[in-house]
Amino acid sequence: MADIDRINDLAHLGHHGIYTPRLQETVDYFVNLMGMDVIHEDGETVYLRCFGDYEVWGLKITRREQPGLEYVGWRTKSSAALARRVEWLEANGHAGRWVDDEYATGPMYEFLDPDGHAFRLYWETEKYVAPEGKKPAIPTNFQAYVGRGANVRHVDHVNLLARDVRAQREFWEDGFGLRTYEIILTEDGEGEVGAWMSSTIQGHELIYTQDQSRTGSGRLHHFAYIVDQREEVLRAADIMSDARIYIEVGPSKHTAIQGFYLYTREPGGNRIEVAHAGYFWFNPDSEPYIWTMEEWRTKPGWGMKTPPEFNTYGTPDVE
Amino acid sequence: MADIDRINDLAHLGHHGIYTPRLQETVDYFVNLMGMDVIHEDGETVYLRCFGDYEVWGLKITRREQPGLEYVGWRTKSSAALARRVEWLEANGHAGRWVDDEYATGPMYEFLDPDGHAFRLYWETEKYVAPEGKKPAIPTNFQAYVGRGANVRHVDHVNLLARDVRAQREFWEDGFGLRTYEIILTEDGEGEVGAWMSSTIQGHELIYTQDQSRTGSGRLHHFAYIVDQREEVLRAADIMSDARIYIEVGPSKHTAIQGFYLYTREPGGNRIEVAHAGYFWFNPDSEPYIWTMEEWRTKPGWGMKTPPEFNTYGTPDVE
Amino acid sequence: MADIDRINDLAHLGHHGIYTPRLQETVDYFVNLMGMDVIHEDGETVYLRCFGDYEVWGLKITRREQPGLEYVGWRTKSSAALARRVEWLEANGHAGRWVDDEYATGPMYEFLDPDGHAFRLYWETEKYVAPEGKKPAIPTNFQAYVGRGANVRHVDHVNLLARDVRAQREFWEDGFGLRTYEIILTEDGEGEVGAWMSSTIQGHELIYTQDQSRTGSGRLHHFAYIVDQREEVLRAADIMSDARIYIEVGPSKHTAIQGFYLYTREPGGNRIEVAHAGYFWFNPDSEPYIWTMEEWRTKPGWGMKTPPEFNTYGTPDVE
Amino acid sequence: MADIDRINDLAHLGHHGIYTPRLQETVDYFVNLMGMDVIHEDGETVYLRCFGDYEVWGLKITRREQPGLEYVGWRTKSSAALARRVEWLEANGHAGRWVDDEYATGPMYEFLDPDGHAFRLYWETEKYVAPEGKKPAIPTNFQAYVGRGANVRHVDHVNLLARDVRAQREFWEDGFGLRTYEIILTEDGEGEVGAWMSSTIQGHELIYTQDQSRTGSGRLHHFAYIVDQREEVLRAADIMSDARIYIEVGPSKHTAIQGFYLYTREPGGNRIEVAHAGYFWFNPDSEPYIWTMEEWRTKPGWGMKTPPEFNTYGTPDVE
Repeated sequence: MADIDRINDLAHLGHHGIYTPRLQETVDYFVNLMGMDVIHEDGETVYLRCFGDYEVWGLKITRREQPGLEYVGWRTKSSAALARRVEWLEANGHAGRWVDDEYATGPMYEFLDPDGHAFRLYWETEKYVAPEGKKPAIPTNFQAYVGRGANVRHVDHVNLLARDVRAQREFWEDGFGLRTYEIILTEDGEGEVGAWMSSTIQGHELIYTQDQSRTGSGRLHHFAYIVDQREEVLRAADIMSDARIYIEVGPSKHTAIQGFYLYTREPGGNRIEVAHAGYFWFNPDSEPYIWTMEEWRTKPGWGMKTPPEFNTYGTPDVE
Repeated sequence: MADIDRINDLAHLGHHGIYTPRLQETVDYFVNLMGMDVIHEDGETVYLRCFGDYEVWGLKITRREQPGLEYVGWRTKSSAALARRVEWLEANGHAGRWVDDEYATGPMYEFLDPDGHAFRLYWETEKYVAPEGKKPAIPTNFQAYVGRGANVRHVDHVNLLARDVRAQREFWEDGFGLRTYEIILTEDGEGEVGAWMSSTIQGHELIYTQDQSRTGSGRLHHFAYIVDQREEVLRAADIMSDARIYIEVGPSKHTAIQGFYLYTREPGGNRIEVAHAGYFWFNPDSEPYIWTMEEWRTKPGWGMKTPPEFNTYGTPDVE
Repeated sequence: MADIDRINDLAHLGHHGIYTPRLQETVDYFVNLMGMDVIHEDGETVYLRCFGDYEVWGLKITRREQPGLEYVGWRTKSSAALARRVEWLEANGHAGRWVDDEYATGPMYEFLDPDGHAFRLYWETEKYVAPEGKKPAIPTNFQAYVGRGANVRHVDHVNLLARDVRAQREFWEDGFGLRTYEIILTEDGEGEVGAWMSSTIQGHELIYTQDQSRTGSGRLHHFAYIVDQREEVLRAADIMSDARIYIEVGPSKHTAIQGFYLYTREPGGNRIEVAHAGYFWFNPDSEPYIWTMEEWRTKPGWGMKTPPEFNTYGTPDVE
Repeated sequence: MADIDRINDLAHLGHHGIYTPRLQETVDYFVNLMGMDVIHEDGETVYLRCFGDYEVWGLKITRREQPGLEYVGWRTKSSAALARRVEWLEANGHAGRWVDDEYATGPMYEFLDPDGHAFRLYWETEKYVAPEGKKPAIPTNFQAYVGRGANVRHVDHVNLLARDVRAQREFWEDGFGLRTYEIILTEDGEGEVGAWMSSTIQGHELIYTQDQSRTGSGRLHHFAYIVDQREEVLRAADIMSDARIYIEVGPSKHTAIQGFYLYTREPGGNRIEVAHAGYFWFNPDSEPYIWTMEEWRTKPGWGMKTPPEFNTYGTPDVE
C-alpha cells in the first residue's frame, strides 16, 4: 500500500485548446448544444467558457486543417508548486518553454508528454467577473445558470491516445504525483491499453488509452464536460439527437470509473463527452485496480458495448 | 362507488389565452425561461407553442391593462362529442356563442362557467408540421427538443379561482363528466375551498380554489406546464432564480395530487407553474378524497408550506 | 382522421398471472429486487402487490413446469361496460367462461385472444386497506412507500407474442376500442410485426410483437412495471447487476413509445421490464404512426440496439 | 489570494461515533431507512457501514442516556502525515492520547477541538472485503448496491456546534490546512456564526455553526450521508415521511455550499441529513466567501426557509 507523501502540486485540469477545420460549426455546437458562451475572439481563434468556470475561459478553439488537440492546461496549487514542477521537467529531460501571450491568463510553461501531447502549467490566471445580466443570484457561483442545451458546468477530464500508455502513466505519477485509479493490461499482460489518473479525489482527470494507429502521436480521444445529474446526460441525448449530431455511443455507464456518458462528435470531428462524474475515491493508500484484458472483456456491470471506432478513432484521424 | 357510464366527451385541456400588461416581457419569459417558441403574431397578440404541442399553438398572450385569463380551451373527442356538449350547455342555461376567427384553429363554442371564466370547446384544429430545422429525429414527436430554459413539454393543468367552488365542481361533473379526485372542505364542512378534476387518468387538469376576494370573478390562479422529470423542476428553479424571476414557492411537492411544483410570476403578473405530474389515477370507481380543513392543516407528507399569498393572489389582482 | 365515438369500456390493465418453474426464486426476485410485497399464498400460488396498487394484489405467480403467461386482466369502467364487452365477445365468436374463485376479486370473464392468450375482464374487485405499519402518510396513496429494490409502483403494460399481429390489433380495436399508437410493418409491407395499443392516454398498455417461433402460441414477451423517474431505471440496473440477475438490454430508450427501459429475466425465465413511461398521447384523432421496416431499421433517436434474442425469446421458450 | 503551500495531511472524514438513548430504534433507522448494514456488535455498541465505505465500518452507535457525538474521525494521507499532525497538536497545546481498542481499525490519536468535540486521527484501518452475496459486480465498488431506503453511499460531512466558531475555524486552518469556503459573520460583523471547511475539493467536510445554548459544548448539529443524485434526496423524503420519521426541513437546496438536503431526526434525537453534494471547488487561491448577516438574511437563490430549531437544536439537547 502507498504509505507515502505524494507530490501535490496540481490544482486541477485547466483551460485547453482544440483545433477544428470548421470553426463556425464547431463554435455553434459548443454554444447552442453544449451550452457554453463565447467570451473572446481573436482572428481564427474563439475562446469559450462554461457557466461553472471560475477562470475567464476554459476552451480555446482554433481553425486548422485537421481537428485535434492544441494543448491541455493544468493550474498549479501555488507559484512555488509551478516552479517545482518546471524544475522537475527540466531536470528530467522534458524541458519546454514559457508561453505568455494567451488571452486573460498568465505565463504558462508548455512541454510535451512522451507521446507528444502539449501541456501547459500555469499559476496566474484571470478570474471571471460576470457582467450585468450574467450575475448569478448566489455569489458563490461564477455566472448565472445557462439553461441552454446540455448546459455543461465545466471540463471534467481529457482522454488522450498514446502509443505507450505505461510510459505516459509513469511520467505523470513520477513527475506530478497523479494517482492512477484503474489500468487495463494488454492481452499478454505485458503492456497497458488504458490508465485513468487524477490529481484529486475525482476518479479521472487525465486518461490515456492506446493509440492503435501506426503513425499517430499526440492525438486526442475526447474532452469531457460535466453535468450535475445523470438525468442531464439523458437530456443531452435528446438535444444532440434532434440536432442531428452524430452520437457515437451512450447514454450509458462506463465500467472504468463508472461515469455516465454520452459521446458525440462536434462538427469539426473531435469526440466530445457529456459526463456525469464517476466515482470519487477517498482511500489514500489503494493501488490502482488492474484489469486483465480477459476480465475487461467480460465487462462486469451494465451498459452499452462501445463500438469498435471508440477504440480506434481519434483526432487528427490519421488513417 | 361510482358504477356508472360516465360522459366521455373531452379529450384534453387545449389552447388557452392570458392577458398581460407587459407583452414583450411576458413573451420573453415564456420563450427564454419556459422554453416555448413564438409561432405567430397578430397586433397585440402573440401565439406560442411548446415543443410537445401537437396543435400549432397552445398559449395565446394578449396585451391588456390587467393580467388574467382570456379563456381555457378543451378539445373534444369527436365532432359529435362537441355537439353533445353544446346541446347540454344550451339546455342547461349556459348558452354561449360560436367563435371562429382564431389563428390556426376551427370554430369554438365559448361559454362561461358559473364564476364567469370563459371556456372554449372545439374539435377542429390545425396540426403542427415542423419546418426544416425543427423536425424531430423520432417522427412521433412533434418538434425537435428545445433544450432551452425550463423546457416545458405542454400545458398540464389550469387552476381557477371561484367564489363557490362546489358550484363549479358540480357544473363540470354534471355537464362534462369530469372526475373529481380531491376536495378540501371549508372550516365548517359546509362548503368547499378546493376541487381537483380531470377528464383523464391524470390527477388534475382543472382545479378550482376559493377566491377570497370580495369582488373578483373569473380570476386565474395559475397555468401549469409539464416537464418530464422532477429533476427538471429543480433545474427550472436555478434558471428562474438566476434570471431574477420572483419565485413564490417551490420547488416542492404538493399534498393534493402530489405533483412536484415551482411557482413563479411571469412579468405581467400571472402565476405560472413548472410541474412534474402528480399521480395518475386508474381506479374507475373511487370517490374523491375529501379533506376536512382540520386534516388539511396537518398536511401529511412533506413539502414547503405555501405562503399566504398562494391562497389570496390571483389575476387580475383585485385588491 | 378518427372523428368517431370510440368504445370506452376498459379502465386499465389489471391483475395478471404468470407461471414459473422456480417459485421461490421468482417470488424473491419480485420482492427483494422489484420491491413488491407478498400479500397472500395458496399452495403453489403466491399473490403480490406493488405499493401503488389500489387493488389488493396485482401479480399472481404459480408454479408450473414452464414459465409463461397465465392471464392478463382488464378492469372495466363499470358493470354495464363489463356486460357490453361480454356481449360483444359472445356475439363475435370469442365466447369464454366466468371464473369466480380468485383471491380478493370478483367474477371474471375469461376468454382467449386470436393467438390464444387468456384474458380476464372484471368489474368487482377488492380494494387494499393498508394495515398498521403500511399506512401511507398521504391518504391518497394506497400503501407506505416501499423503498426497496427497483421500487416499482404498479404494472405499466404487457407485451405478448403473436403469429398474426394484425389480427390481434384488429380484435382489440374492433371489440374494445383500444387505440393503436404505433405499428411496424413486415419487410414486404403486407403484414405487421408490432402494434402498441392503449385504452388511455398512455402510449402503451398492450403490445403485440411477432412470434417468430414455428410452434408457439399464447406466449409472453414481457410484463413492465413502472417507476416514477428515469433515474430509478438507472438505479434498478445497479440493483439487478449486483444481484447477478441477467440484464438482456438497457437501461436505454425505446424508439417506439419512447419509454425508458431495463429488461431482465426473473429466475423462472420470464422477461420483466422496469419502465419509465413513454409518451402520453392527447390527440384524439391521430392515426397510428406506421413504421416501414426500412425506416424502423434506421432507428431514429438514440438508444441501445436490442440483441437478437429480444426479438425471438418469449415464455414458454418453445425452441 | 492564497499563494501558499498548504498543509495536506488529511485524506478524508473517516469513521465516527454517536450516542443514542434508544439503541435499537436508532440502529433500525440507519439500517431500514438510511440503507446501512450492521457489521459488528459489541455489548451496547453497534458498528454499521454504508455500501460505499471502503473501510470495514463508518458509523459506531453506542447507547448512552443522552444523544450526541462520541467522536469524528479523520484518516490521514500517510503515516508520516499522522505523525506530523500529532506533533503539531502536542506542540500547540492540544495534546490528546492514543486509543487502540476499536474494532477493525488501527491506533487513533484522540484530541479535542477548542469547543470540546472529540476527534480521532488515524492511518491504519481495515479494508472491507465483501463476503459472498455482498460482492459487487464491478470490482472497484466495495459492496453490492444496497437499494434499501435512502441508500446512502457514505458519510459526506459533519456539522458541529461551537460557542466560538472563529476559534474553531482558525484551529483547523492553522493546524490542518483545511480550506474554508464560506463564512457567515455575526450581526455586528465581529464574530462568526458559521464556517464551512474541507480538506478536499468538496465544498464541505467539516462545518461549525454557533451553539446558541448557554451551557452546551461539544455538541452535534448533524451528520450528513451522501446519495448520488438529487432525485434520491426526494425519494428519501417519501421514505422518511411514510415511516413517520420527523422531517425537520427539506428536501431543498442550501445557499451555503449549495447542497441538496433532507434533515430528519433519528429516533435517538440526533439530526441526520441525506445530502446530495454541494459544489466542488477547484480554484486553489480563492478566499472564503464571507456573508454579512444582512446579506445572509436576504438568502439569494431558492429553497425552503429553515425553521428556528435548525439554528438552536443540537445533541445533547441542553435546554
